[in-house]
Amino acid sequence: MRNGTLVSVNGKMIPISEAKVSVFDRSFLYGDSLYEVVRTYDGEPFGIDEHLRRLYLSAALCQMTISQKPEEFKTAMLNGIKAFRAQPEFKDHDAYVRLVVSRGNGKIGFGLKNLETPTQYVIYVESIENFPNPPLNVGMNLQISKRVRNHPTALPPAMKSGNYLNNLLAYLTAAEAGFDDALMPDQQGFITEGTTFNVFYVKRGIVVTPPLDVGILDGITRSFIMNLCIENNIPCREVRFKADRLYDADEVFVSSSLKEVLPVLKLDGKKVAQGKPGPVTLLLKEKFTTKIQEWRSKIGN
Amino acid sequence: MRNGTLVSVNGKMIPISEAKVSVFDRSFLYGDSLYEVVRTYDGEPFGIDEHLRRLYLSAALCQMTISQKPEEFKTAMLNGIKAFRAQPEFKDHDAYVRLVVSRGNGKIGFGLKNLETPTQYVIYVESIENFPNPPLNVGMNLQISKRVRNHPTALPPAMKSGNYLNNLLAYLTAAEAGFDDALMPDQQGFITEGTTFNVFYVKRGIVVTPPLDVGILDGITRSFIMNLCIENNIPCREVRFKADRLYDADEVFVSSSLKEVLPVLKLDGKKVAQGKPGPVTLLLKEKFTTKIQEWRSKIGN
Repeated sequence: MRNGTLVSVNGKMIPISEAKVSVFDRSFLYGDSLYEVVRTYDGEPFGIDEHLRRLYLSAALCQMTISQKPEEFKTAMLNGIKAFRAQPEFKDHDAYVRLVVSRGNGKIGFGLKNLETPTQYVIYVESIENFPNPPLNVGMNLQISKRVRNHPTALPPAMKSGNYLNNLLAYLTAAEAGFDDALMPDQQGFITEGTTFNVFYVKRGIVVTPPLDVGILDGITRSFIMNLCIENNIPCREVRFKADRLYDADEVFVSSSLKEVLPVLKLDGKKVAQGKPGPVTLLLKEKFTTKIQEWRSKIGN
Repeated sequence: MRNGTLVSVNGKMIPISEAKVSVFDRSFLYGDSLYEVVRTYDGEPFGIDEHLRRLYLSAALCQMTISQKPEEFKTAMLNGIKAFRAQPEFKDHDAYVRLVVSRGNGKIGFGLKNLETPTQYVIYVESIENFPNPPLNVGMNLQISKRVRNHPTALPPAMKSGNYLNNLLAYLTAAEAGFDDALMPDQQGFITEGTTFNVFYVKRGIVVTPPLDVGILDGITRSFIMNLCIENNIPCREVRFKADRLYDADEVFVSSSLKEVLPVLKLDGKKVAQGKPGPVTLLLKEKFTTKIQEWRSKIGN
């Protein structure tokens, strides 16, 4: 495991080597779990309330009753961050914080009557430096995957669950072919999202991103960027589009809590635009950073 | 947990309360695992070689390199069965045996370079009496789910993986409405399979089951039954069909290692045929049992 990583199980910090779950845990057996990821800026988790709100929306889609209140998760996450930064080596590091909520342990079998515990949760805290982004002028090299994103009538991508093989397999195929990651189409070839991020393109000054109903996660950074567009008088539209629009775009970028605003400079091995981050991407990145700084200084220490 | 249940992790028997996996296990994090279930008859696992063969086919679909040889899994499963029947209370019980193979433990992140262990496996052995079937004259009461089965281009149902939410959610909805379980359609409304079993219907003496390419598991009991049909001069066809064919069928039954041949006597709350198991179902059930007995007596003790 990586240096400095901390884990808590049901709110209790546990040494990594002892951080375990029962083999009867439903996330181990069925991927029957939900999760969220937040990152800190100067020690403060950004958007934690929005992430926790989305967790309960995921739970509704997953027919899961979460027995913990959001405050319990929040406290445990904040405690994890505090403990992480109490390590001298990591006192100036920002943190990656992952919350996994499993439906619980129980007897083998789908039925809820088999459950022997309420929902259980694990929190992982590690240095954000373990999840580095490429520099802006390098950007990402993405593959348009042949792996189709889960259909909302089968397993809604709006639900952030522990069933990650659909995206994971798209990632593995892309990585094996030398790409950084992948974008996934729907069955009609409309672009949905990346394996762990949303996607945008810019054409003649207009920012375009797939609409929620194409079957994507309602990304918190995605919404944040759409608001940045509004505040800065940049037209932003939610429209379905196929890969050809990306090949032909002036700029392409992706978003996530970890990636913030990150240019895509190669698609399927070919340069996007001139292979350099475009002006709208750079502007949004700058506004994003400013906004985060404003938020951070408002909170204080 | 249930009485008599035994667990081994990587081939080593572990007391249930200590049978745990790391929170960094990829089956816990992503459902990144495969599994198989076999049952014993008079202590002997039926079709274990076919199940293990299918496991490696699943691994190919999952881009997973299983580091163990099938013989290692087989030995561990046989040891589990032996230990189970060595418990005086269970010496005459047949066993349910589940094998889960996780891609391993590792750092958070999809990339295979994050893996810190090879594939790891857990075997669960418990009394088959914990998985009882309803009597033939009661049969099953199934709901035709509105939850669409995973599309093969997204996540092939032919791969028996730890990503079980698609079926699990179909089951939960059905169970909540008072059904025993659910059948799942594809996006065009063609029936695929049950949440953990294959489905057949009989009309004018012809047995019909959905073809593999509708997106289903290549069920070992399904194949076994199709062979029984051939041996007994019962016409059997693989044809796509919608729910109306089931409502209108003379007989409907399901198959799995645990359910063997099991009549469906209610669909969406309405009686199928006359609400009694039909002659073809009963004949196949009888032939199934005979075939198992022949196989079992050939093996000896």
